[in-house]
Amino acid sequence: MQITPDLSRLLNELETLASFSDAPAPAVTRVVFSAQDLAARTYLRKLFSEAALEVRTDAVGNTFARWVGADPALPPVATGSHTDAVPHAGRYDGTVGVLGGLEAIRALQRSGFRPRRSIELLVFTSEEPTRFGIGCLGSRMLSGTLSPESARQLRDGDGKSLEEILRQAGFDGSLENVRLAKDYYHAFVELHIEQGPLLELKGIPVGIVTAIAAPAALRVTIEGAGGHAGAVLMPDRRDAFLAAAEIALAVESAAKGTRSGDSVATTGVCKVFPGAVNSIPSRVVLEIDVRDIDLARRDGMLSAIRAACETVAAKRQVRAEVELINADAPAQASPLITKALSASCRTLGIEFMPMVSRAYHDSLFLSRIAPAGMLFIPCRNGVSHRPDEYAAPEDIKRGVQVLAVALAQLAE
Amino acid sequence: MQITPDLSRLLNELETLASFSDAPAPAVTRVVFSAQDLAARTYLRKLFSEAALEVRTDAVGNTFARWVGADPALPPVATGSHTDAVPHAGRYDGTVGVLGGLEAIRALQRSGFRPRRSIELLVFTSEEPTRFGIGCLGSRMLSGTLSPESARQLRDGDGKSLEEILRQAGFDGSLENVRLAKDYYHAFVELHIEQGPLLELKGIPVGIVTAIAAPAALRVTIEGAGGHAGAVLMPDRRDAFLAAAEIALAVESAAKGTRSGDSVATTGVCKVFPGAVNSIPSRVVLEIDVRDIDLARRDGMLSAIRAACETVAAKRQVRAEVELINADAPAQASPLITKALSASCRTLGIEFMPMVSRAYHDSLFLSRIAPAGMLFIPCRNGVSHRPDEYAAPEDIKRGVQVLAVALAQLAE
Repeated sequence: MQITPDLSRLLNELETLASFSDAPAPAVTRVVFSAQDLAARTYLRKLFSEAALEVRTDAVGNTFARWVGADPALPPVATGSHTDAVPHAGRYDGTVGVLGGLEAIRALQRSGFRPRRSIELLVFTSEEPTRFGIGCLGSRMLSGTLSPESARQLRDGDGKSLEEILRQAGFDGSLENVRLAKDYYHAFVELHIEQGPLLELKGIPVGIVTAIAAPAALRVTIEGAGGHAGAVLMPDRRDAFLAAAEIALAVESAAKGTRSGDSVATTGVCKVFPGAVNSIPSRVVLEIDVRDIDLARRDGMLSAIRAACETVAAKRQVRAEVELINADAPAQASPLITKALSASCRTLGIEFMPMVSRAYHDSLFLSRIAPAGMLFIPCRNGVSHRPDEYAAPEDIKRGVQVLAVALAQLAE
Repeated sequence: MQITPDLSRLLNELETLASFSDAPAPAVTRVVFSAQDLAARTYLRKLFSEAALEVRTDAVGNTFARWVGADPALPPVATGSHTDAVPHAGRYDGTVGVLGGLEAIRALQRSGFRPRRSIELLVFTSEEPTRFGIGCLGSRMLSGTLSPESARQLRDGDGKSLEEILRQAGFDGSLENVRLAKDYYHAFVELHIEQGPLLELKGIPVGIVTAIAAPAALRVTIEGAGGHAGAVLMPDRRDAFLAAAEIALAVESAAKGTRSGDSVATTGVCKVFPGAVNSIPSRVVLEIDVRDIDLARRDGMLSAIRAACETVAAKRQVRAEVELINADAPAQASPLITKALSASCRTLGIEFMPMVSRAYHDSLFLSRIAPAGMLFIPCRNGVSHRPDEYAAPEDIKRGVQVLAVALAQLAE
């Protein structure tokens, strides 16, 4: 079996997909269910149909493109990733797994291979938490990790409900039908850029993921007292933003305080109200991301941040309400997948290394209903979620080859 | 001369004006040249015409409503204030000086008084800095403090130029014609709520302003490095928001460090980019308001904040660019006005006290082209720029009476 990805076509498709963006190139902003996201979905469905894949979309917008196997009754083998992008992001996060997965299927088709099991390409809705404050929305619902009732509570920053947005985007609203049965898939493999520096540093082209770190997110809403910046004297103030500043510094200290190089904590969102130069901030909303490959250490950071919120609130006479947006358990990759990927690398003569994913992926949730795993390719300087995110064409090509051979083995 | 303000009519008009708002009552949001601001201007012009005032509007939207005096060639006596409101503000800031000024004129008309000098009511464009980052836009241009060339550089948060916005709002764009000659006015008196607690604390219904504090504003743009919140380890980060947090705390320390109860410094704006929970902040924009009644002390705070920006930037390996948005000299009230106001209080048997304005008013700029001054009325708990901003009807009535008698004396 000769696997020859059409690299120039794939790079063209990545470039076209990047053009569906609310930010000027090279930046990509493609928030879920924005006009650009909807246009990108139309473009992808066209590509899927051209590859003779059977396409269906579920109630939350997850898209499934199936290459029907010789024995269609068997649980399929799946691959895929996401195409939404955080504000001012790059071109490769998620998209390499979707368009690379498509090219792996096309390369297998061209090779003359006929799978026994169907091979299905998935595009997950809203892997990024930008709009609803929760990441991996689509795969959480597919895996039953997020119930339809909880999904109905989700609102975007404008207060619009997920269901309302889905209806406006033309999806039917029957969220009960999204969840898939356990073992619906025989296997799930996701191709992704590393979003970290290790492969590049070691000069190794493929990483086989053995575990995905456990992410958690907090929202802290601080209520102080506003007033005119000229007229309220310093001792009389209950400035919500100064409390937020101290909490953000405590978030950093919590991560540094574990003395493990693997602990990270980030305050990525800070919204200040009313937000005028001559008004004392009365209310601030912070969103905080906390991760570790060790669950106990991660939960220790969460406790330290909660304690800091209480201390700061008492000192500055403000209210700080802490809400746990999500706190997922880490996942181990399935040996079925890691073995198929390492066998594929050996077949192709491509060097690989086992590694942990500190970033957070749809595979984490797919692992709850199917044997799941991931392969990583290098990205320049470990940079992601930035316009200068970059993966080299040769690395993308090798990733597609390894994925294709593994899919073929899993589908036989 | 019997001055009897029609208080219920005035309160009704304040209520109607508050209904032109982008925030639900009791909050008022009326940003300059928003649809609500334009609608409020139409409402005011109708009121001015009903009072038989001659109305003109200049190129930047300042509105002038003139009660023509017996000797129209003499420099007029003027009063007025502003009607734009910061996000989530209250009902009285500025509006009491506009609608109260109108009622003072109507009460004088009803009393049978005929002024020798014309009496002109002014409504200044964009006293609040919300949209263009600079306060007192209209009065700065009237007084020649802001040149037409500089005004042409102004952009709002969406990048739209002042001229473009003016054209869309239907104003002619000839900014050269806005500036008034020195001594165009014989006198200018502004009625305003105190926006501080002193009158209420002392139980005195009228404050006569002797000086207006010197405000300054800084914009600090911090450039760090973004990246994925899961993948970039703590020692490798150059987080722009953590630098901003330290700078905001240094702003507070700068104000507390003067050991003068009159020094205030506020970080009212903090915009975080890209602003996603799983992205490390790459860029933050802060806007900082610094005030003191003592110019040297205020400039000392500015220096301390600049020094802190440098220290934090060096420590966190970010760039922090500090831009002075404005730094105005304080103003002394004209004895012509303070004498007229104190004579008016004595005539009416109303107790008053001299005081300093820590907040920042169009009078500061009018004082550069005319003898100018202000009178304050109490506001509950010293609160302003908040939905619970409140001035008691009796206090508003007394303010209108004192203003009317002073205008009459100045116009004789």
